[in-house]
Parts: sequence; C-alpha cells; structure tokens
Amino acid sequence: MNKNKIPVAILGATGSVGQKFIELLSDHPWFEIAELAASDKSAGKKYSEAANWIMSSSLKEKYKNMTVQKCEPILNSKVVFSALDSSVAGEIETEFANKGYYVISNARNHRFDKDVPLMVPEINPNHLNLIRQQNYKGAIITNPNCSTIGLVLALKPLYDNFGLDAVNVVTLQAISGAGYPGLASLDIYDNVIPYISGEEDKLESEPLKILGSLNENSIDNAAIKISAQCNRVAVIDGHTECVQVKLKTKASIQEIIEAWQNYKSIPQQLNLPTAPEHPIVYFYEEKYPQPKLHRNIEKGMAVAIGRLREDPLFDFKFVIHSHNTVRGAAGGTILIAELMKSQGYMDNL
Amino acid sequence: MNKNKIPVAILGATGSVGQKFIELLSDHPWFEIAELAASDKSAGKKYSEAANWIMSSSLKEKYKNMTVQKCEPILNSKVVFSALDSSVAGEIETEFANKGYYVISNARNHRFDKDVPLMVPEINPNHLNLIRQQNYKGAIITNPNCSTIGLVLALKPLYDNFGLDAVNVVTLQAISGAGYPGLASLDIYDNVIPYISGEEDKLESEPLKILGSLNENSIDNAAIKISAQCNRVAVIDGHTECVQVKLKTKASIQEIIEAWQNYKSIPQQLNLPTAPEHPIVYFYEEKYPQPKLHRNIEKGMAVAIGRLREDPLFDFKFVIHSHNTVRGAAGGTILIAELMKSQGYMDNL
Amino acid sequence: MNKNKIPVAILGATGSVGQKFIELLSDHPWFEIAELAASDKSAGKKYSEAANWIMSSSLKEKYKNMTVQKCEPILNSKVVFSALDSSVAGEIETEFANKGYYVISNARNHRFDKDVPLMVPEINPNHLNLIRQQNYKGAIITNPNCSTIGLVLALKPLYDNFGLDAVNVVTLQAISGAGYPGLASLDIYDNVIPYISGEEDKLESEPLKILGSLNENSIDNAAIKISAQCNRVAVIDGHTECVQVKLKTKASIQEIIEAWQNYKSIPQQLNLPTAPEHPIVYFYEEKYPQPKLHRNIEKGMAVAIGRLREDPLFDFKFVIHSHNTVRGAAGGTILIAELMKSQGYMDNL
Amino acid sequence: MNKNKIPVAILGATGSVGQKFIELLSDHPWFEIAELAASDKSAGKKYSEAANWIMSSSLKEKYKNMTVQKCEPILNSKVVFSALDSSVAGEIETEFANKGYYVISNARNHRFDKDVPLMVPEINPNHLNLIRQQNYKGAIITNPNCSTIGLVLALKPLYDNFGLDAVNVVTLQAISGAGYPGLASLDIYDNVIPYISGEEDKLESEPLKILGSLNENSIDNAAIKISAQCNRVAVIDGHTECVQVKLKTKASIQEIIEAWQNYKSIPQQLNLPTAPEHPIVYFYEEKYPQPKLHRNIEKGMAVAIGRLREDPLFDFKFVIHSHNTVRGAAGGTILIAELMKSQGYMDNL
Repeated sequence: MNKNKIPVAILGATGSVGQKFIELLSDHPWFEIAELAASDKSAGKKYSEAANWIMSSSLKEKYKNMTVQKCEPILNSKVVFSALDSSVAGEIETEFANKGYYVISNARNHRFDKDVPLMVPEINPNHLNLIRQQNYKGAIITNPNCSTIGLVLALKPLYDNFGLDAVNVVTLQAISGAGYPGLASLDIYDNVIPYISGEEDKLESEPLKILGSLNENSIDNAAIKISAQCNRVAVIDGHTECVQVKLKTKASIQEIIEAWQNYKSIPQQLNLPTAPEHPIVYFYEEKYPQPKLHRNIEKGMAVAIGRLREDPLFDFKFVIHSHNTVRGAAGGTILIAELMKSQGYMDNL
Repeated sequence: MNKNKIPVAILGATGSVGQKFIELLSDHPWFEIAELAASDKSAGKKYSEAANWIMSSSLKEKYKNMTVQKCEPILNSKVVFSALDSSVAGEIETEFANKGYYVISNARNHRFDKDVPLMVPEINPNHLNLIRQQNYKGAIITNPNCSTIGLVLALKPLYDNFGLDAVNVVTLQAISGAGYPGLASLDIYDNVIPYISGEEDKLESEPLKILGSLNENSIDNAAIKISAQCNRVAVIDGHTECVQVKLKTKASIQEIIEAWQNYKSIPQQLNLPTAPEHPIVYFYEEKYPQPKLHRNIEKGMAVAIGRLREDPLFDFKFVIHSHNTVRGAAGGTILIAELMKSQGYMDNL
Repeated sequence: MNKNKIPVAILGATGSVGQKFIELLSDHPWFEIAELAASDKSAGKKYSEAANWIMSSSLKEKYKNMTVQKCEPILNSKVVFSALDSSVAGEIETEFANKGYYVISNARNHRFDKDVPLMVPEINPNHLNLIRQQNYKGAIITNPNCSTIGLVLALKPLYDNFGLDAVNVVTLQAISGAGYPGLASLDIYDNVIPYISGEEDKLESEPLKILGSLNENSIDNAAIKISAQCNRVAVIDGHTECVQVKLKTKASIQEIIEAWQNYKSIPQQLNLPTAPEHPIVYFYEEKYPQPKLHRNIEKGMAVAIGRLREDPLFDFKFVIHSHNTVRGAAGGTILIAELMKSQGYMDNL
Repeated sequence: MNKNKIPVAILGATGSVGQKFIELLSDHPWFEIAELAASDKSAGKKYSEAANWIMSSSLKEKYKNMTVQKCEPILNSKVVFSALDSSVAGEIETEFANKGYYVISNARNHRFDKDVPLMVPEINPNHLNLIRQQNYKGAIITNPNCSTIGLVLALKPLYDNFGLDAVNVVTLQAISGAGYPGLASLDIYDNVIPYISGEEDKLESEPLKILGSLNENSIDNAAIKISAQCNRVAVIDGHTECVQVKLKTKASIQEIIEAWQNYKSIPQQLNLPTAPEHPIVYFYEEKYPQPKLHRNIEKGMAVAIGRLREDPLFDFKFVIHSHNTVRGAAGGTILIAELMKSQGYMDNL
C-alpha cells in the first residue's frame, strides 16, 4: 500500500461500473484501491472469483486476490466510490455517510436530495459547498446519469454565453449503459429498443439541477424546457445524442463552435489527473462524431461534438458523443473525488 | 409467360432494391416479371451470374437463367419498375417515358418534377392525375424516400384529423437502406453514423408534396415545418423514427391512437394485392416498436407505432417503425402500380 | 378447437424453444395447441403476460389469452411437446410418461436412457419401436441436440454409402441456441466464445446412438470416432459446422454430392407436413452455405452443405449449416410427432 | 525530424494496414515515419484527405499534413514497410529492392520466393541470413499471413519440444483482416462466411517454410501435414483458431502448457521495442481466449491460448487467439524491422 495515496473503497465492485472504477483507478496518482466491497453473495470470495471480469484490459494481479468485503460501514477507507445498483444504493450510501464516510456515488438514489450536489466538476464545482448542509457525519456526493453528462457539458458553454430556452434531445445509447449482464443479445442484436426505463425523466430533470445556481442551502434549478427520447442501439460503448437548442440570444455557428472549443473550467485549471485537457472537441467532418472513432478521445473524458447547423424548428441542431462508462460513470465520479481532494475535503482523512 | 398477367420489367435489377422487386413480384397475381435490365456491365449475362443475390429467400429458378437486358427503351414490357441508382436514373427514366413506358420509380431524380406525382397510395391516390400534365408519351410516377414513407403514413391521420403545425424527426436507419455493397462492415459494426447524405433534405421536403393538395396541374405543398436528423445504426432492415408533432387543434392520446387504428384508404378499399389490411398498427407495450419484432408486420407494408406520450416542447411524441426496403422501397412502388392498374391506367397496354 | 386435430400441450411454453413450438404449430394440419404449460411462476397468468415473446412473427391472438398451466400431468392433451429446461425436464417428463402421456422432448435428460429413442425421423425411424420397451404407461421420445441434427443428417448418406471411420467437427453456433435471455450482449457482441457447456460431449456421443442399429431392446451404437469443438458466434439463428470425414471405402466428390442430393427417407415418402422435400441441399458456390442466406431453406428443415473438397488429413472436408431452433429443436421434434402419428401411435388417444 | 531515428516510409499508407503501421510507429523509439506513399490517385494530396482514417485512436497532427508520395523508388527513406495490396505489391516491391531499399512487406507476393525469408522473429530469426542470397541491391523480407502467425507461434514450442506430425486448424477470422472497405456490412452482419479466398492455402503452406530450417541458400520446409478451414465471423479484430495437433513424442497437458509459458526467444532476449514480454499467454478459464478480452494482451503482440485438452482423433486440441492487424500484420512486420536493426542490417543506411 502506497502511504502517499488516499485509500479508497469501491462499493458494488463486481458489477460493470465497479470494474470500470478498478480499471481507471489502477494507476491513479492520488487514490489507491484498498478495499473492494460487493453483495453478500460475493463477500468473502477472492475478487477474481466473485467478479466475471468483462473489461477489455486484463484485471491487474493486485486485485485478483483481494477478498471481497461486505458493503457495510466498517471499511477502513474513508472515501468510497459507489457503483451500487439503485435497488440497494440508497440505504447503503446513507449508512456510510452516517458513519463518516465520503460517498461519491454513481447511483441515482440521492441525486435529487435537496442537500446533495449533483456534480459535473467543470460545470458546477461550487455546488460541492452543499455538503455543508448535510447532517451526515460524512457526506454524499452524486454523479449524474451517463446520458446527462455528455449533454450538459455540451450545453454549458451555450447556457453561459447565449442562454438556453429549450433543449430537445434524442439519444442512441450503448449497451454497456445497461450494466452486466444487462441486455440479452437476442434483444438488441439487429435491433433498436426505443425505450430505457427512467432515462427520459433523468435527462429532462438532471440538467436543470446541474446548471442551477447555488443558494445558501440549496440549488435553484435552471429554467430550461427539455424533452428527451431515449433509444438503445447495438453499440458497445458510447452514447450518441441528437440535440436541438433554442437560445435566449442570437449566436452564429462560428460563435458557438468557439464557445465549445474555448471551454475550460476548474478541473482544467487545477490540472486534475482525470480532467480532459479539452472537455469539448468539435469535429468539422460531416460524418462525425461516431462511437467507434471518438469514444476514447481525451481518454474517454471529453465530449465530441459535430454537425452544428441551423434548425427549422429550434435555433440549432448538432450531434454529441461521450463515453458512457468513463465520462458518464466511473471517470466522471473519480473526477469529482479529485476536485474534492484538491479543495481540501480530504485533508483530514 | 402467364397471358393473364401484365408483363413488367425491372431497371437496375441486380442491385439490392432490384432484388427486392424480384422477391416481391415473384408470385404477384397481376404482374409478371418479363425482363430484367441492368447496367451494360451486367447486360448479356444470365441473371444469376450478373447479380450477387443477397435476399434471404432463394432466387427462383425462373429468374436465374433470364438474360439481363440493357436499360434501353427497347424492352417489350410497357410497365417498368425503376430501381436505378440516382446517378443514372434521371436520364434513363426520361428516355423510357418518352418512348411510351410507364416508369414507376424508386429513384429520387424526378420526385420534385412539377408534373410527377410523389405517391403513397393510401395518402394521395388522386395525385396520380398529375401524369395527365406530363408531356411524355408514357409517364413517370415516383415513390418517396424510405424514411419518408413511414413518417408520412403516421402523420396523415393526424394531418387530416387535427392539423399539423410542426414535425420533428430523428431517425435510426437500417444498413440495407444504403444499398449493396453499401456500408463497409468496419464503418457500422459497433457504431452509429450520424449522417446520411441528402436524407435530411428529403425528410424535410418530401412529406410536404405528398401531403399537399392537387391543383389543376400541380401540387400545393402542405404548410408544415419539419426538422429531420438522420442516423445509420447497425440494424439490417427497418427504420425507427422518433417523432414529435405540434398539432393545429387539441387532441387526446386516445383520439390520436384511434385515428391511427381506424386509418384505411383507397388501397384497402380496393383490396390491392400488396396493400396492408391495417396500414398503421399501434402497440401499447412501452418497448415497442422494434425492428426485429415489427419489420415484417403486414408483410412489411404497415407502419408500427408506439410510445405515444405528451411532450414538453411539442404536443406529442411517439416512435414509428417501418420496413425500409418493403414499404419504403420495392413494396411501396409495387403498390403504386397496383393502384394505377386498378384505376384503368394499364387497360390498353 | 378443431375436432379433427390432435390436441397437444407444450411444456416450457414461455421459453424461446416453447415460443418456437407455438410459432410452428400455429397452423399445423394435424395438431392443435390446446394447452400451454410453464413454471409455477407463470402458471395462472395469461400467456401474453407470462411470456416475453421474442419471435419475429407476431403472437397469434388465439394464444394470447390462454391461461398458462402448471407442468403437472393433469393436462387434457395426451401428446406433450417438452421445451423444458434440462434442470427440471428429467423429472417432469418421467411423471408425464408415467401417467400415460406421450412426451416428445427437446431436452437432453432422457436422450441416453436405454429404452428411449433419440430420433431424427429421416435417419432412424425404426428406433421408434424402442418405446415398446419402456415401462411407462405413456412414452418418452427425444430429439437430439441442435448441433447434432445438422451434422448427423449430413453424415447419414455417407455412412450408408461409404462407411464412416472418423468425423471431426468444429461448430460456429448461433446465440439463439443458448435460449432466452441466454447470452449477455456484452459477452458475444464483437466476440467469439470458444466454449459451450456440455456441447462437445453431445456432439461426440449423440450421433453414435442416432446412427446406431436397433436390437431387440436397445441400440447398438455406431462405431465412429468423433471429435468436436464448439464455438458461439454473433449470429442470431443457424449453426455452421466445419466437418472432416474419413470414410471406410473410396468415394469421389461427385458420388458424395449425389448421395446427399438423392437422400430421401421415410418422412419424405410419407409426405409428413413438416418434412423438407429435400433434407439436404448442396450448394456449389464457394462462399456457401451461410446462416443469413440458408437458415430458412425448406422452411428451416433442411441442411445446407457446401465446399466439399479433399482433405490432407482426413478424406474430405465440407461445411454444413442448419437452423438450430427449427430443424435443431422445435421443428425436428414436431417431425417426430408427425412420424408417430403416421405410424399409428396416436390412433387411440 | 528526429536525427537519432531511422526514417522509414510506408507504401500503401492509406489502406487499413497502412493506417495500423502509422498508429504503431507514431511513437516508435527507433523509427520515424518520414514518408507516406500510396496509389497515384492519392499521391499529391494531404494524408488526411487521401485516407479515410478508421483507426480508433486519432490520427496524429504530424501526419495529417504530410503530402502523400507515389510508390516509386525515389523516396528518401531506405527502409520501407509495404502495406500494399497484393495486386500491385509484387512489382513495386521488386523495384524498390532493386534500387537498394529494404522492403519489409506484409504482402503475400514474395513470401515463397526462394531467397526471401518469411519471418516471425521469435521463430526463425536466422532466416534473415537468406537475404544475402538475394540479387537485389536492397532486400525483400516478408511477414506471414495474419492467421498463420498466431498459429505458428503456438506450434513452435510444440515443434521444438515434442515434434509435430499433423496440424488441423479451423479459423474464425475478424473482418478487419479483409482490409477496408473490405466486407459489406450486409454480407457479414448476423452471418458467417465459410470461405476466405486463398487463406486455407496460406495456412497450409506458410508454417512449413517458417518452421523450416535454413540451408546454405534456401529453406528446407518442415515436414508437417496441415489441414486448414477458414471462416469469417462478425468480430472487428482478432482471429480465433481451433487447433488439433498430432505430436511425434508423448507429452502431458502440463508439459505443453509449460512449453508455452516458458517460450521466449531472440526478440525477448534483445528486448526489442515491439516484442511481447510473453509471446504466448495460457489461460485456464474454460471460456478463454476471446477476441474481446484478449486481442490486446501484450499490446496485441502475444498469442492467447486456452482449452488445451486431449483429442479423440489427434493427440490434443486447443484454442488460440491473436490480433490479426497487430501481431498478424503491422506489428509483426515492425518487429522484423527491429530484429534487422538490432542485428546490424541498418547500420549503414
């Protein structure tokens, strides 16, 4: 164990998001995985036996023999990443926070708790202050839904520069977003499923909180009308979203592209380890962005945008793409932890 | 040769749409394929040698040994179905029409000629009268783009019953729509391509002519604002479209569903051989419609609709699905021919 | 209920093989589905609610409202098709047979019972006599594994005409063979899984019983050495198998192809409703057979063969393809029932 | 331009193998791409305009603006990697060799020239001496076929330790092996193509030369009987091969696994930049190896093996997997160049 690194635990370590946390944290400069926790069924087993490893990189030796712990607040690591399923995340995360743990969660359960920040570090780093309102001994901080993050990163420079009245979004989402085992191959191969349970609600509500402004003790939601339609397609990783926007003030195509290209924020200024140098990359090729070509730009932490053009019904339409399990899940959550550390929240662990 | 059937020829018979024409016409009660024509490269060969047959049903023996003809207006059949590529269709179809042939075309070239009807037999059967304006010795009649047909069939009952102000559509289109060889497997496998050349223009313009009204000698376009975004996904057959509509008058969800379910038109009344009994099938299951499950309903000639719900930005949103190479290409074109015959246009051939 | 048809029940009716039975029996001239039975979890529900219908044809109205029965031997139909999972099939099938039912099963449990025939109607129709040895009031008759049936149909004409010393087979099997939900999409998309639990054993043993000869009260296995390697590939339906054979006597390529092309047997002579006119179809095109093009030949009941050529290590090698859920499961099982009926076994039901 | 690196050119730089060369050489410690050459159609254009970049990593800026050269022997780089199509490679490579270039080729044309080594650096590094027999001012050195390399690496330890009588191999090959655009999506999606032109011949002949022994001025082929059957499956990268072997001497499963695990050779001893630390990785999990999980082990330069078991017809059977465009093409070819440099062949360039 590296004494200079902060020990962290992963709750729900055997699932697909848990595995992605392990993959992304295996060489992290600040954090070191000290404990892996999962369901009672897995607890007590060696990790390599408890988990059906499905990442394309090999499981590191150091994790293979770790004994899986129960998801109970008796872990030594005070920083825990939650990759728990929403069927159990709510209660377990509360227990951990009550016992003094920092729970940085990818689960949806606490996202709309009044005192819980819903964080995209580039967009709303100040929302972190909300945790001072929490009555937990520790704290809960949440990461948005995978399809929200890409969208809201693309929207933020528009919101800041031109104002946003309305957003229309249709998604084409990857199968990895459904977890593992997730979708049956017979259901999605040679098919489109035009429905993802709960997803449209998340896309229509989460951006409002993320783009909202921090009051003394809560968030004032942004006043934007959003309509979302969500589809599952036969892509392994990477969500594509067709977006239309109605702005508050006039903007030219060139101004919008520049707003995206120039967009940098706190994580970039702080040079956080997982922060992309360019959170937004604009492509001029008319066939871009594409999952296969762009899911890994900036190590999966950037949003790829293309096809900005005028729209007959809104002002503009464009296509965005972002990696749903990196930026949209484990990577985004790790970036929150990095922001917290850089702002002193982990000084006394 | 069956003396009681009308002999027809297929132009562009070796391509994927040409093959679908052959498949669908092989047991047709009214028409019999008498000639297969294709590019000079194929002409003179046996059909089975000229074409790389990719349909999932076997090529019938009777077509294997047919000698492929050149696409020149010296064919015996006076009714020709054009499955020609748009790079050559315009001129060849004009030549045939000048020489007295009825050219019923799936190609885009003549769709917006002022005197050429753009037909969906259920929707605008009376547009057929336009051909009287044509100066050809024969006539040219066109079938819309594959993604247009499904959309416009779903829109027609709304247009008639409630009026339409605006339509927003995002498509997830099958690879067979790109013809053969079409998309490289390395380009579309595990991928989405958010661009289809020319497709958005077609979707934004063709419905206006189809839903338009016939004047003495031309079509007055319908006054609807349409925005389209088109994507290619890894599905073999069947286009999915996420649609939003703004109506002119109030409507309830139940009223809309009933308008769809009750929709029948001339082809159904005439009991045309290729006409679906129900042109529109509404599904209440929240995960429907899907390409794999619904592409073949009503032998691929119906539009499947589902997920009708209220929309925060428009009035309603819903999902449609239709078979792009059957209803959207060869099948739709054959239905036009059936309408023409039933209305006496082929009586004196 | 049609009085002229034999009422049948399907055990395990909600699973994927059960659904295929329903699809194939929905217009059967001799049998009519009178009862659908499944697990206790499904029993009592309407079939359309108990089953997640995944067939590409629509579920017929007449089945939607059938109440699912328990798999207990109190059904009215005396002929039951078993699509049960092997985890429960053994015991349930025994119970039904004890109570006087004819159980025609697609499950593996009883395949190697000494007095249970393992049937491919073209190959070993006389094995049906084995059921006279059974102590059941009814009887159990089994259908082989999906990958076995295609292989053994291809081997039978070689075995009869030239003798078989050794068979080497490597399979590329479709995902539908794993049932539903079966393989996770993340496991098989862009992948090959070079292992199917228990499959190689079945392929190395079942052909020996099927090609074996009937003694007074059991089967003498055929004396052939078989080696099998089984892979799962990203194909929806249809198993491809690369086969090598060592014959007992000399044969030319032409003689082998003729043996295949001329192969007809009892089901063809009896003109059984589900029997393919040609059980084996040989293709000369060097790229054939292929799942996408040939899975449905003879309505999925024939074996497609191609690429017969000499082999440096064996005598010959070739490629076969057959539909795993039609010929290899439900269709093959129905053909057994048809054979039984045509031979008088169902006269007194 | 880095003065300390050897400038190299890539012939056929716009194709898929050419692109993989660029990707793998973009940070190479010894070589630097100085020139990109392609067909006359591409020559004169900027590389980013001439090539349709399909690699999943982004094209580096430094290559985007390189002007594509003609494939004529007037290039400045004396080391050229040939990714040319076999329709033109033979002649062009000869011209370059005649003019003094070292041509290290992935094309098949010269593989069986008597004085041209067919190299897998781990297996036959001494075959490099063959080029002294060549009458070229420069030299031609070839890399084997993609499916050969994985196979022959797996065979080499068996050949050395136990002798090999016979090898039977059935492949399941990735679509990237067909180049770009290569296979039409409609041909391979939901399909298997049981034929790859020329591939079986290569697999049956190339291993004999590679495993052969160097005489004074040619290679004595190894005396092994090989039978190969090749299939194309819907996998993007990575060839799976089901292999059976008959050994000359007895071996246990444990001995074979150890022979594989202990296998290291010259490239490992020389620590060549592209050499895998372990050329062969054995997996004990019964479902391994798999393309999705193992194509990238050792950066795509190792062969993954699993499922070693006894065989009823041969002695043993097992499954191998290797990355067809890395180890099997560009990566393998670069390793040859590294071997050449380390052995002094490039000292006087």
